[in-house]
Amino acid sequence: MTITRRTVLGSSLLAGASLIVKQGPAAAAPKVTPISSHVMVPNGSLLPSKVSGGVRIFHLRAEPIKHQLAPGLEITAWGYNGSTPGPVIEATEGERVRIYVTNALPERTSVHWHGVFAPYGMDGVAGLTQAPIEPGKTFRYEFAFDRAGTFMYHPHADEMTQIALGMMGMIVVHPKRAQGERIRDYVLMSHEWKIPIGTSRPDPLAMNDFNVLTFNGKAFPGTAPLLAETGDRIRIRFGNLGPMDHHPIHLHGHTFEMVSTDGGPVPPAARIPETTVLVPVGTTRTVEFTARAPGDWPMHCHMTHHAMNQMGHDSANLIGADVRGLDEKLGRVAPGYMTMGADGMSEMAHMRMEQPKNSISMLGLKGPHGVIEMGGMFTLLKIRDQLADATTDPGWYEPPAGTAATEATAAELARDGIVP
Amino acid sequence: MTITRRTVLGSSLLAGASLIVKQGPAAAAPKVTPISSHVMVPNGSLLPSKVSGGVRIFHLRAEPIKHQLAPGLEITAWGYNGSTPGPVIEATEGERVRIYVTNALPERTSVHWHGVFAPYGMDGVAGLTQAPIEPGKTFRYEFAFDRAGTFMYHPHADEMTQIALGMMGMIVVHPKRAQGERIRDYVLMSHEWKIPIGTSRPDPLAMNDFNVLTFNGKAFPGTAPLLAETGDRIRIRFGNLGPMDHHPIHLHGHTFEMVSTDGGPVPPAARIPETTVLVPVGTTRTVEFTARAPGDWPMHCHMTHHAMNQMGHDSANLIGADVRGLDEKLGRVAPGYMTMGADGMSEMAHMRMEQPKNSISMLGLKGPHGVIEMGGMFTLLKIRDQLADATTDPGWYEPPAGTAATEATAAELARDGIVP
Amino acid sequence: MTITRRTVLGSSLLAGASLIVKQGPAAAAPKVTPISSHVMVPNGSLLPSKVSGGVRIFHLRAEPIKHQLAPGLEITAWGYNGSTPGPVIEATEGERVRIYVTNALPERTSVHWHGVFAPYGMDGVAGLTQAPIEPGKTFRYEFAFDRAGTFMYHPHADEMTQIALGMMGMIVVHPKRAQGERIRDYVLMSHEWKIPIGTSRPDPLAMNDFNVLTFNGKAFPGTAPLLAETGDRIRIRFGNLGPMDHHPIHLHGHTFEMVSTDGGPVPPAARIPETTVLVPVGTTRTVEFTARAPGDWPMHCHMTHHAMNQMGHDSANLIGADVRGLDEKLGRVAPGYMTMGADGMSEMAHMRMEQPKNSISMLGLKGPHGVIEMGGMFTLLKIRDQLADATTDPGWYEPPAGTAATEATAAELARDGIVP
Repeated sequence: MTITRRTVLGSSLLAGASLIVKQGPAAAAPKVTPISSHVMVPNGSLLPSKVSGGVRIFHLRAEPIKHQLAPGLEITAWGYNGSTPGPVIEATEGERVRIYVTNALPERTSVHWHGVFAPYGMDGVAGLTQAPIEPGKTFRYEFAFDRAGTFMYHPHADEMTQIALGMMGMIVVHPKRAQGERIRDYVLMSHEWKIPIGTSRPDPLAMNDFNVLTFNGKAFPGTAPLLAETGDRIRIRFGNLGPMDHHPIHLHGHTFEMVSTDGGPVPPAARIPETTVLVPVGTTRTVEFTARAPGDWPMHCHMTHHAMNQMGHDSANLIGADVRGLDEKLGRVAPGYMTMGADGMSEMAHMRMEQPKNSISMLGLKGPHGVIEMGGMFTLLKIRDQLADATTDPGWYEPPAGTAATEATAAELARDGIVP
Repeated sequence: MTITRRTVLGSSLLAGASLIVKQGPAAAAPKVTPISSHVMVPNGSLLPSKVSGGVRIFHLRAEPIKHQLAPGLEITAWGYNGSTPGPVIEATEGERVRIYVTNALPERTSVHWHGVFAPYGMDGVAGLTQAPIEPGKTFRYEFAFDRAGTFMYHPHADEMTQIALGMMGMIVVHPKRAQGERIRDYVLMSHEWKIPIGTSRPDPLAMNDFNVLTFNGKAFPGTAPLLAETGDRIRIRFGNLGPMDHHPIHLHGHTFEMVSTDGGPVPPAARIPETTVLVPVGTTRTVEFTARAPGDWPMHCHMTHHAMNQMGHDSANLIGADVRGLDEKLGRVAPGYMTMGADGMSEMAHMRMEQPKNSISMLGLKGPHGVIEMGGMFTLLKIRDQLADATTDPGWYEPPAGTAATEATAAELARDGIVP
Repeated sequence: MTITRRTVLGSSLLAGASLIVKQGPAAAAPKVTPISSHVMVPNGSLLPSKVSGGVRIFHLRAEPIKHQLAPGLEITAWGYNGSTPGPVIEATEGERVRIYVTNALPERTSVHWHGVFAPYGMDGVAGLTQAPIEPGKTFRYEFAFDRAGTFMYHPHADEMTQIALGMMGMIVVHPKRAQGERIRDYVLMSHEWKIPIGTSRPDPLAMNDFNVLTFNGKAFPGTAPLLAETGDRIRIRFGNLGPMDHHPIHLHGHTFEMVSTDGGPVPPAARIPETTVLVPVGTTRTVEFTARAPGDWPMHCHMTHHAMNQMGHDSANLIGADVRGLDEKLGRVAPGYMTMGADGMSEMAHMRMEQPKNSISMLGLKGPHGVIEMGGMFTLLKIRDQLADATTDPGWYEPPAGTAATEATAAELARDGIVP
């Protein structure tokens, strides 16, 4: 199957559209502080809300869902309001919220507001601060967001299973006083899945052999790019609810600073320049930086197996071996089998290989100069001097002539005395 | 078996008591700076000491021990003076100490003072700075603690095996000048174990599939709670000697700052607010914060498999499958087998399931509102406006009426236009 | 086989020598800012360069190599210019460089300059910013190093495979204005390998059971020590390109501060004292400190399985069991088998055990006081009041009499009332 960037963008265009509509009521609310600016959620959306009696009202539905991790791989997961991660809850500092949670799952659940100073009884720990929400029931949580920041929500009941199956979401609380800054404010939540090749059910028992890694529920090439104009101030709010890995997120061509955690703002004097931010399990890490130069800059987890898609980790290591005909033979008896090939795996990304049913190849999207041999927790920050709008992919960036790496000419090699 | 909080507390009450008695001599010592205040060690104790000729004298015995990780799970481990982790060594800045180490193990050992500026010859690296301590022998270490701080001790001989089996301990050196601050000063050392279900011997070869996680040698519900009064200043000294995982320790309802590492104090300007502190292998992380509000606030490693107890990671993933009668049938042939169940694992915590001999269920302690579906590296910070004393569990906290999450009434749903 | 420190040092002496020669041309260059001082690369070397027309010219050759991880273990890896990691690229802030890359591998490759602000077209992402470098081709990269710092280079084509096989290197850019400081400036790059016992081919599919860990491509006892004189200022530039683990590097007897990352310098007010620096995947961490006291101070990854060499993680746990004759019997049918022994593994390091062909024992180097039971990512910082020169191992340090841990005498035990 040929994947085009266009098909990928579809989803985020929809998300973008629905986002505006959904926020209509909120924007029209008279009694509460208006949200100064909305965060942008690539491949995702904001949780709709309405305001009544000075309280912002939300409704979360915990439910089994069909979810596409990337074109070609659809799973049965658990999420909120039809998606995983759930829609982003957006509010304003000091705002009082009432959040109804309906349990449409086959087992008990609850919702914990990670990092939020909710009253003890609203902390959402099943058995401890409240009775679990039994299947079919709807609970009411009500509290005020006392501080601005980036937080998360997730079940605190059979946590290991429910988080593994996709139940998590982000919370963004904007400061009361709009700082009037023009900033592109993005939210990216990571997750790691174990999807045995050929199946459509995440394995919640997986501890260390995750094979599909996602940003906002999508694995590359399913990830929608982040967009910005040269010189723009950019904020990215990363969230990680695990299950198990601390992800080092690297951005090409830029340095950034961590400006806040789910605990609060990082004092300017304590900020450190980095090109890779480690996002430990159970934390949010918000970074800020300025778009330095035009380009389609990669941003990805630097753990090499996390920038890949499904692979057969039980496969034999064939580097350097003679495997003529091996694939063909093994394919007959072991459909899930993927050989590394004797010369590395690049070849797999370039041949139009037949994939096992409902699975995605380890590598690849056709880029402007061949196949981009990446997958998983990988996306692009597309910077242009000018963008058409906030949700339309500008396509591929072409650097000015003579500024790209190319094959050296014989004259150059001779001039510099290079013997290949 | 029904686990009650009472049985759990027993151990820590004893520890508390013995702590006072044991410190008698030290407190009575005339020649040395008195220790301003003792640290508190949930589920643990302080290493007794006596002072002679201005030197504080300790005696560590490295030995095989029987140890209860949680009610229902007892193992044969290696530790110091009958426990794992070993008793906390407490001293004062500038104090000269003499530490005798007796090797009652079947193999060579040594003791390294992690983070301490000991003279090179006292650094405790077997084969390098000293001969190994052969079984049956007693070695003498002597040096002065030149700086206040939180450090650790562990063998530097067959390190992988001996640490995996439980040989580690914490060191707290108080500043010479008592700061006169009233602070609740806690010490928590983490560890990760691989205890195959039905066995009683930790597997030192385990690299990434640990199934019992502990704070001070106990897995929830075996962990004694930390106690404080509203407004109290609290210090928690976390230590992690591995073997392999960097643990993200999360506290509900509060933010804190890391104020020191085993390298020294963190300058105030460099402190960052967090709700989760990452404690890398081979480090201590000391955090401080103020008890914000009454409640039984969870504190746990946020890696989901680390807030669980023993589980069969080889089990099949049965989410969504029809497993009627499967448990019963498989149980006959495979005693260790634990099915996830078709609807998640919550059910396991609620039914009084028959456990394999010497093993603990994945989830659970009966709480005030049902079963708390947690285990492993999970404990509670119990804050009350007033406590009876420092070692008596105040029981469960009940939030004021109307401040807890409950099922939404029909009237509420109608008023807010919520369709479950 | 008996390993002596001498054989080990051989390699680094050669590296040291070649280093001087290779830098000859660079030092003689008139048109460019002279490099104030060279970094030192234990077990490694600097990439030779020449200057022409004000541009510093380098040539990297990506190629399969034979590489010795430690005496007794030679593998077939992929690297640059005959080594893994590749030679260190050293330049000066503001300097323009031209780097030719020849692909002598059997598959496509490219080179990404991690942390460097290269023009987009020179960023080295195959398929995205450039066409991949096909086997046999030579590409030209050209850009200016706009900032001083510690960066890295690696392929951005079939990244998972190529990095796992050893393709990576460090980049050091010195500040334009020589700070005239006298500092011992070291570069150490970590890597983790899965080398099934008895084989010579790293397995790129390994995700979490790495069994050979290295600093600059060498596992202890193959690691050359770092040298310094008491009172010297020391800088160590750590780099980690994974594949998967964030390594906590611990130094005995000292504390240090992280002074910069691949993102830039850490402001003095934000620096934190540590004895263990966590080096996440995809980052560089540069620490500085002062040599405190003479000794052979260990520096190692504190994850216990990372300070070990090859081990059979599938072996049964025999701690406490009666294994008389077991080794001998199992050895006949399973050559790769290594028993833990009933009393721990120390014994293995002390007996001159027969190793499987092309493999290294889990533990060990014969030290001044017996076998040092360590391996993997472990080295020594050898501090002396005075050193002969920068590349000659001063041998073992002997602490002054009476300053080392020794067996307690009967008189001492009696005096202090210690009952062993």
